Amino acid sequence: MTQPLVGIVLGSDSDLPLGRQAEKVLAEFGVASELTIASAHRTPERASRYAREARARGIKVIIAVAGLAAHLPGVLAAHTTLPVIGVPVAVGTLGGVDALLSMAQMPSGIPVATVGIGAAKNAALLALACLATADENMGQRLEEYRERLAADVDAKDRKLKEEGVNLQGGTMV
Amino acid sequence: MTQPLVGIVLGSDSDLPLGRQAEKVLAEFGVASELTIASAHRTPERASRYAREARARGIKVIIAVAGLAAHLPGVLAAHTTLPVIGVPVAVGTLGGVDALLSMAQMPSGIPVATVGIGAAKNAALLALACLATADENMGQRLEEYRERLAADVDAKDRKLKEEGVNLQGGTMV
Amino acid sequence: MTQPLVGIVLGSDSDLPLGRQAEKVLAEFGVASELTIASAHRTPERASRYAREARARGIKVIIAVAGLAAHLPGVLAAHTTLPVIGVPVAVGTLGGVDALLSMAQMPSGIPVATVGIGAAKNAALLALACLATADENMGQRLEEYRERLAADVDAKDRKLKEEGVNLQGGTMV
Amino acid sequence: MTQPLVGIVLGSDSDLPLGRQAEKVLAEFGVASELTIASAHRTPERASRYAREARARGIKVIIAVAGLAAHLPGVLAAHTTLPVIGVPVAVGTLGGVDALLSMAQMPSGIPVATVGIGAAKNAALLALACLATADENMGQRLEEYRERLAADVDAKDRKLKEEGVNLQGGTMV
Amino acid sequence: MTQPLVGIVLGSDSDLPLGRQAEKVLAEFGVASELTIASAHRTPERASRYAREARARGIKVIIAVAGLAAHLPGVLAAHTTLPVIGVPVAVGTLGGVDALLSMAQMPSGIPVATVGIGAAKNAALLALACLATADENMGQRLEEYRERLAADVDAKDRKLKEEGVNLQGGTMV
Amino acid sequence: MTQPLVGIVLGSDSDLPLGRQAEKVLAEFGVASELTIASAHRTPERASRYAREARARGIKVIIAVAGLAAHLPGVLAAHTTLPVIGVPVAVGTLGGVDALLSMAQMPSGIPVATVGIGAAKNAALLALACLATADENMGQRLEEYRERLAADVDAKDRKLKEEGVNLQGGTMV
Amino acid sequence: MTQPLVGIVLGSDSDLPLGRQAEKVLAEFGVASELTIASAHRTPERASRYAREARARGIKVIIAVAGLAAHLPGVLAAHTTLPVIGVPVAVGTLGGVDALLSMAQMPSGIPVATVGIGAAKNAALLALACLATADENMGQRLEEYRERLAADVDAKDRKLKEEGVNLQGGTMV
Amino acid sequence: MTQPLVGIVLGSDSDLPLGRQAEKVLAEFGVASELTIASAHRTPERASRYAREARARGIKVIIAVAGLAAHLPGVLAAHTTLPVIGVPVAVGTLGGVDALLSMAQMPSGIPVATVGIGAAKNAALLALACLATADENMGQRLEEYRERLAADVDAKDRKLKEEGVNLQGGTMV
Repeated sequence: MTQPLVGIVLGSDSDLPLGRQAEKVLAEFGVASELTIASAHRTPERASRYAREARARGIKVIIAVAGLAAHLPGVLAAHTTLPVIGVPVAVGTLGGVDALLSMAQMPSGIPVATVGIGAAKNAALLALACLATADENMGQRLEEYRERLAADVDAKDRKLKEEGVNLQGGTMV
Repeated sequence: MTQPLVGIVLGSDSDLPLGRQAEKVLAEFGVASELTIASAHRTPERASRYAREARARGIKVIIAVAGLAAHLPGVLAAHTTLPVIGVPVAVGTLGGVDALLSMAQMPSGIPVATVGIGAAKNAALLALACLATADENMGQRLEEYRERLAADVDAKDRKLKEEGVNLQGGTMV
Repeated sequence: MTQPLVGIVLGSDSDLPLGRQAEKVLAEFGVASELTIASAHRTPERASRYAREARARGIKVIIAVAGLAAHLPGVLAAHTTLPVIGVPVAVGTLGGVDALLSMAQMPSGIPVATVGIGAAKNAALLALACLATADENMGQRLEEYRERLAADVDAKDRKLKEEGVNLQGGTMV
Repeated sequence: MTQPLVGIVLGSDSDLPLGRQAEKVLAEFGVASELTIASAHRTPERASRYAREARARGIKVIIAVAGLAAHLPGVLAAHTTLPVIGVPVAVGTLGGVDALLSMAQMPSGIPVATVGIGAAKNAALLALACLATADENMGQRLEEYRERLAADVDAKDRKLKEEGVNLQGGTMV
Repeated sequence: MTQPLVGIVLGSDSDLPLGRQAEKVLAEFGVASELTIASAHRTPERASRYAREARARGIKVIIAVAGLAAHLPGVLAAHTTLPVIGVPVAVGTLGGVDALLSMAQMPSGIPVATVGIGAAKNAALLALACLATADENMGQRLEEYRERLAADVDAKDRKLKEEGVNLQGGTMV
Repeated sequence: MTQPLVGIVLGSDSDLPLGRQAEKVLAEFGVASELTIASAHRTPERASRYAREARARGIKVIIAVAGLAAHLPGVLAAHTTLPVIGVPVAVGTLGGVDALLSMAQMPSGIPVATVGIGAAKNAALLALACLATADENMGQRLEEYRERLAADVDAKDRKLKEEGVNLQGGTMV
Repeated sequence: MTQPLVGIVLGSDSDLPLGRQAEKVLAEFGVASELTIASAHRTPERASRYAREARARGIKVIIAVAGLAAHLPGVLAAHTTLPVIGVPVAVGTLGGVDALLSMAQMPSGIPVATVGIGAAKNAALLALACLATADENMGQRLEEYRERLAADVDAKDRKLKEEGVNLQGGTMV
Repeated sequence: MTQPLVGIVLGSDSDLPLGRQAEKVLAEFGVASELTIASAHRTPERASRYAREARARGIKVIIAVAGLAAHLPGVLAAHTTLPVIGVPVAVGTLGGVDALLSMAQMPSGIPVATVGIGAAKNAALLALACLATADENMGQRLEEYRERLAADVDAKDRKLKEEGVNLQGGTMV
């Protein structure tokens, strides 16, 4: 089996769909990852051990997904110097702004790389960009991905212009 | 030396003035406390060890003071079942709303008793109220404190009514 | 009948489901509680009398559940020195941030122990932690509860690793 | 001495400057008022008694000034059916948004007439408008006040147009 | 036909359900009201004329219901010295916080009495409280209404205590 | 005297510094403007008359500067179909977010072009862009202004690179 | 085919319904527009080229529709001096407040005319008002539109008064 | 001269102090960086060219510092697949929450790694963590840095315990 380079840690099993999104993006770029459910508050020992041992186990980047107080990425970052990417989740009634602030506003010395609310896919792309700092080939593939992104938008734009009104009722999104 | 019953943990030495406020209120009620500086992110091992050992050392309640992402009370609560009271601090530019959300919005299973932004004095009073659940005498003293609080407001009200206009330029606050 | 140790006060009968959650957690720990519907604004006399008489009736901790302006825990706290735990409810259109601020931002002298929005279960656990300051056995049971919490997360993590993809469509949450 | 028609209740003596502003506006309209310091939480009995007895004592409108959790107008409103006007105060670090929400978001059945943050003058004018529902002469005086307000703005506008650039460094505000 | 004493102005016909709530409460107290749809921005002349002529037509209090920028109560208040009560409506995606701020934060000199988001019923009760400043009988009826409110909460509390668990699945709300 | 093309309306004379900023930018582009102090609430008749007569008087664009509830641009827009640009001002304690929402969230049919908090200069540039839709020469001058803006940033960048450390203590801002 | 005068740029094809709303309003005023899907981040070259070439292609005003970080109008404004109108979209979980701030708070020198969240129709009307600065006939038609708006509100008001209660259950909105 | 590995881009020269903080942290770890002032809106061509050419010039990570609408990191990220770290700056009156949202809430496909408001130091540490994914030695040095951070907190804690009260008036922060 391939060595996982990215550890995806979920604060709760309800975060699994976001975890799967990240896993899938990484797999599309040929990067193995591993999914773990570990809570900063309910399984603090396991969460901190995961972070402490990650580098030695070959993990290069950690993605942590959590909602509400969302301490998970900060707690992991306290136990490793690997880059930790935080994905705030919109659980509860505040739309994820609680998790966003709790991840971004880390104290001096222990950064968390925060992405948008629910943006697991962007977390995976950011992890790939970190890996690409040491992997020219990965940088190339990210460039190609960007070209596909652009081509996709261009195609939608062309379709809009060709078909005009017909688009309106469709399911383009 | 008296056994400290309340552990006051500061996320940063800049929180010391708030820590002293709590300490002073406790001392006025004859309750010894101990002040510790321990960061959830910079000294995670010491912070979690503090929480794990607190009960055995005779601590009954923990007060945690922190700003920004303010994970400290949550991290302590993850390592002890003692009541943990969180005091959000208004550092940074968001007035403490980041710390308030990060403390209050803890996940199911691991509560933090959050008080107002900067409300170290109220944290101490809440700690005393917890102690009073097992100490009738303490309950009595809290009642007397309330009477003094009321008497103080009553005195200001009387003074306002007696002196009227003269109060206006004063430093009553 | 067992003496109730925790008084759960609901600002409105629409808060009953949250009240039942707290009641159930307490019962699981063998702690009797009593549910009361009393409004800080519609039945102010009864609410304040409840608070004033609670200690003498054997109540050790009060949990107050309320939404919107959510003055209930503050009003109760004004009439008792028992620990008052506030559960902000997300009624109305602001997601409970109104209730959260109204509970947490109490003036100096009269604390309310605020938990997360809708976090009735955490309020019950916090009440138990208060009771445990005088009840070693309860402290022990809270520790065991934590172990069960951790075991539950561990089990989900193992299941995720064993079954992998199959989890994805399930209802693990 | 004239019968006070408006009761101005301050949650803290630090609110006295705002109380004086309201008192002064009322006096300019020939309406006597009385200033009281009474805390919803520190002197709950006196605060509720004040509200319960106000109507019988001849008070027609209550203005309540408070910051932070700012339960005062709501607590007064729970004990009287007189119109209660709430003035949220910007104490603490949240700019008064805590007090504003805590006053405006009252539950169904017990309204508080909330004005702007720190808007004690507007509270007084609103009290006068209430009194004017039964006092044609007061309505007339309020109309004249509006004319003076408009004339004042008009005068500033003329001055701006006459003096132009010279205004710039001045202290027109 | 009875002289309407309260003018209820709706910024949009989509606010009609709230307008009807206010109308109904007033009717229960025997106070006639009139419903008008007038937009501060789409029919500014009619809106301001309504406000200017209201006093002479016998209107004693105006209730204005509006969402989004919600200038309606402020615009009406600019053209009358009658008490204007603003009901912020939660249209759009911000939960009504835009309307709430736009109503409460009026400039010095022109108050709007703001109630909670969607709180049309409270607006009506506040209008009645204004009318009661000159109508002892109305004051008495408001007191009776409060007693009914309290009795209703008391009945729910008794029912909860008598029936206990059975309530849980019901539709008490 | 040159025909003013832009009307700058200030809700209060305290907004004059922002008004002067806009005036100055316009003057640099050779566009005459006129400054008026008119309050949506204190001088509603004059404000609406100003808007109604503006087009006939040769005004092409209106800039309205206001804080707090900040109804001014909306009220002007209700009385004219000229483009109305709103400049929210940070008065009071909410940093201008009240004024921003009150300007941006206008109802369907009556737009206000809202710029940033305190952004009077940008309001003037936006007014010029509107005028440029019919004035090719103005478009050219705006392009040249952009080049100067870019050159200014470029110069600072070069200076930073040349002088390096020396910049640090300076007053470049 | 008619020369389009307004360019409507959508950050994503999911914004198409809002784009169509703007297009339709413009068409009702006889103004041709063109719809383009171009992302500030996914197709930055095409987006900036669109802006750079727009003036030469005869476009007079650009409307940009975007959600989340919503950089699109700012990025377009950086590449053209045409008026750029931003329509914040409520995608994600923050109700569009992220997009609103990201559009309104542009730096000095590069304005974006921000309208309300989702207010594509108002964006179109604002574009028409810009065009009307050089087209007296368009100004006249905007005035007529306003009269129709007013007449529509007046008609609803009359209907309300004539039919009264029957309206209540209807679909007037 | 050493090859700079980190490009620090400032949206304005007023951000220079934050840029210097990042530069200094990087230098302490032996990593050369380059400071550039480039505005996403005022010098869009130079900003995008910087991003497009950065990888070929040997830059491994970009740190972008900006306030208000703060599009800079997003615009750079649109033109490179290097990791882009965004530092929101608290300029203006909203405490930096505008910049924070504008950086974090990037659309799918183009991530920005957002750190706390004003957290330039954390941005530098995050950049080092990215570099360390390919540089074992750097990982080691980051671990040592963490040990110094912890030792620093430990020293303050010891000093607090040794000197007790004396600390109170000091300048420990």
